[in-house]
Amino acid sequence: MKALVYNTEFENNYKLTEKDKPKIQNPNDAILKVTLSSICTSDLHIIHGQVPRANNGIILGHEYVGEIVEVGSGVKNLKVGDRVSANCETFCGECYYCKRGYINNCERGGWEIGCRIDGCQTEFVRVPYADNALNKLPDNVSDLNALFVGDVLATGYFGAEMCEIDSCDVVAVIGSGPVGMCAMMCARVMGANKIIAIDIDNKRLELAKKQGIADYFLNPIECDIEQEVKALTNLRGADKVIEAGGTKETFKMSYEIARANAIVAVVALYEEDMVLPLPKMYGKNLTFKTGGIDAIHSEELIKLISEGKINTDFLVTHKFKLKNIMQAYELFQTKGDNCIKIAIES
Amino acid sequence: MKALVYNTEFENNYKLTEKDKPKIQNPNDAILKVTLSSICTSDLHIIHGQVPRANNGIILGHEYVGEIVEVGSGVKNLKVGDRVSANCETFCGECYYCKRGYINNCERGGWEIGCRIDGCQTEFVRVPYADNALNKLPDNVSDLNALFVGDVLATGYFGAEMCEIDSCDVVAVIGSGPVGMCAMMCARVMGANKIIAIDIDNKRLELAKKQGIADYFLNPIECDIEQEVKALTNLRGADKVIEAGGTKETFKMSYEIARANAIVAVVALYEEDMVLPLPKMYGKNLTFKTGGIDAIHSEELIKLISEGKINTDFLVTHKFKLKNIMQAYELFQTKGDNCIKIAIES
Repeated sequence: MKALVYNTEFENNYKLTEKDKPKIQNPNDAILKVTLSSICTSDLHIIHGQVPRANNGIILGHEYVGEIVEVGSGVKNLKVGDRVSANCETFCGECYYCKRGYINNCERGGWEIGCRIDGCQTEFVRVPYADNALNKLPDNVSDLNALFVGDVLATGYFGAEMCEIDSCDVVAVIGSGPVGMCAMMCARVMGANKIIAIDIDNKRLELAKKQGIADYFLNPIECDIEQEVKALTNLRGADKVIEAGGTKETFKMSYEIARANAIVAVVALYEEDMVLPLPKMYGKNLTFKTGGIDAIHSEELIKLISEGKINTDFLVTHKFKLKNIMQAYELFQTKGDNCIKIAIES
Repeated sequence: MKALVYNTEFENNYKLTEKDKPKIQNPNDAILKVTLSSICTSDLHIIHGQVPRANNGIILGHEYVGEIVEVGSGVKNLKVGDRVSANCETFCGECYYCKRGYINNCERGGWEIGCRIDGCQTEFVRVPYADNALNKLPDNVSDLNALFVGDVLATGYFGAEMCEIDSCDVVAVIGSGPVGMCAMMCARVMGANKIIAIDIDNKRLELAKKQGIADYFLNPIECDIEQEVKALTNLRGADKVIEAGGTKETFKMSYEIARANAIVAVVALYEEDMVLPLPKMYGKNLTFKTGGIDAIHSEELIKLISEGKINTDFLVTHKFKLKNIMQAYELFQTKGDNCIKIAIES
């Protein structure tokens, strides 16, 4: 079968090549026929060599929906023919971390698919702990509707969830890209009072505005962000900040635009160390929550999509066939043609 | 009256000199006759020029107990003759931050005493918002018993409180100095399962051991702290970490000894910026809570002392008269003679 493989021996570390179709290895495995997959910035971090835990030679991709074609003897809740969304993380559900909802740190899983074991940018994928990682889709949720449930939407949800949003909160979201816009939608669902979208790309801010997923739209190139955020918040700063920008500048912005005693949820994956000027911010009493998504709310997210409360379809600006995925990677990396997310048809 | 004054014109920026006795300035003020005061590491940060908000020319000191000698017309709950402990922070109780318990960021107060207005290392001190900042002492709580209620004990409480301790938690406290030892006592009261004391000074670890305020005692000079903490925690790391060390090394240690999904409470006041290696710790999902104490639990702390559940008397290793406070500063700065805390008799 065709597969987009990460290998440091390839030019730019990745190539569309041939791989064997996966087989059931453990009783709780399922084999999925991938219908749609997507490319995530994390895939780029892998091919840039910035993800030490990534195994050389694996098929990339961890954002996908599909149809079950085979299940292991231990799989209880899924059957052949089920249409499912897939978590970017697989998890045992039984270890110390899983029992506390910290599935990203599952002792037998976490971010495995497309990182440590073969991923989804192919035709078929083996999914361990299938009962936990896969969620059946209702009839009124299409494959496209559900494409982001298990990763980018879950990450946006995780960012908003870390913020412990209440109905008085002004939430600033740094980065109006896929994760940022998902965070805005989730912050809205969680009842945020106002949402401030921040990006250096006016096209992305316009998209957020058109979708009605934020209330204010600020471009740091065009204004003093700290002053503007304060002007919108009784001179205090944002009650909650979701940092989805991923650069030194956006990290710095995150604590500068936060009010005293705010929560800053850092969902971005950085390629370099950050500096925390603790002496300068002493007394500001910020809480920084850092980390990789705990994708345990897929069922609730599917329900929100099914009820029309969240819709991520607009994120898909481009579609490619699997055979053309190399072109899709190039477009996604350059963000050409106002590309936000790409749906790959397997 | 005699007063220890911070002034950049003085040698080493501080000197025992003469100042006028304070007067009531606002209806909610009280004048306190200081009976005991102490020296805090924050005082040293001020004379080192590391606290930009400190005003030149003020009397230093924010850790004290005393007797009320005068009250303004608006003071409701205190009267002349009352013996009280004093918060290091004064706060209006009415602003946005006060209403949320964030008194460190009170719009009309916060850390004022001994920083922006005259402090307590003298004979008399004016205390704004006296009803909020001062707490009456019961007969069975002596001045010495209560000396640390409003600052170092409150800071230890704040560190433990930020950790959201539950009964299964192994809490590691970095720094077995005054703040660290207070954090250990408070973590114990909050029901921590086990407490790990960490310090490079064996004398301080021995003191913590003798007091029974921790369960394990580790010296980073003598062992691999990360390995030792993991050995005590099923190879996971500490559930909660309180960083009271205040150096680059202790900050680094704080996230290294924490288990995945731990809370790291940073109560130390640093003199330089810290580095957060987010790419390396991606997926560890740590929460960092930073900041200056919100000293709003004085009443509860006095109750705990009164009931014999917390006792900070052992922290006082030395006593000086106010007239000899310059010697006390020298001893405290050099940590000579195993000095932990000094009680100054006014």
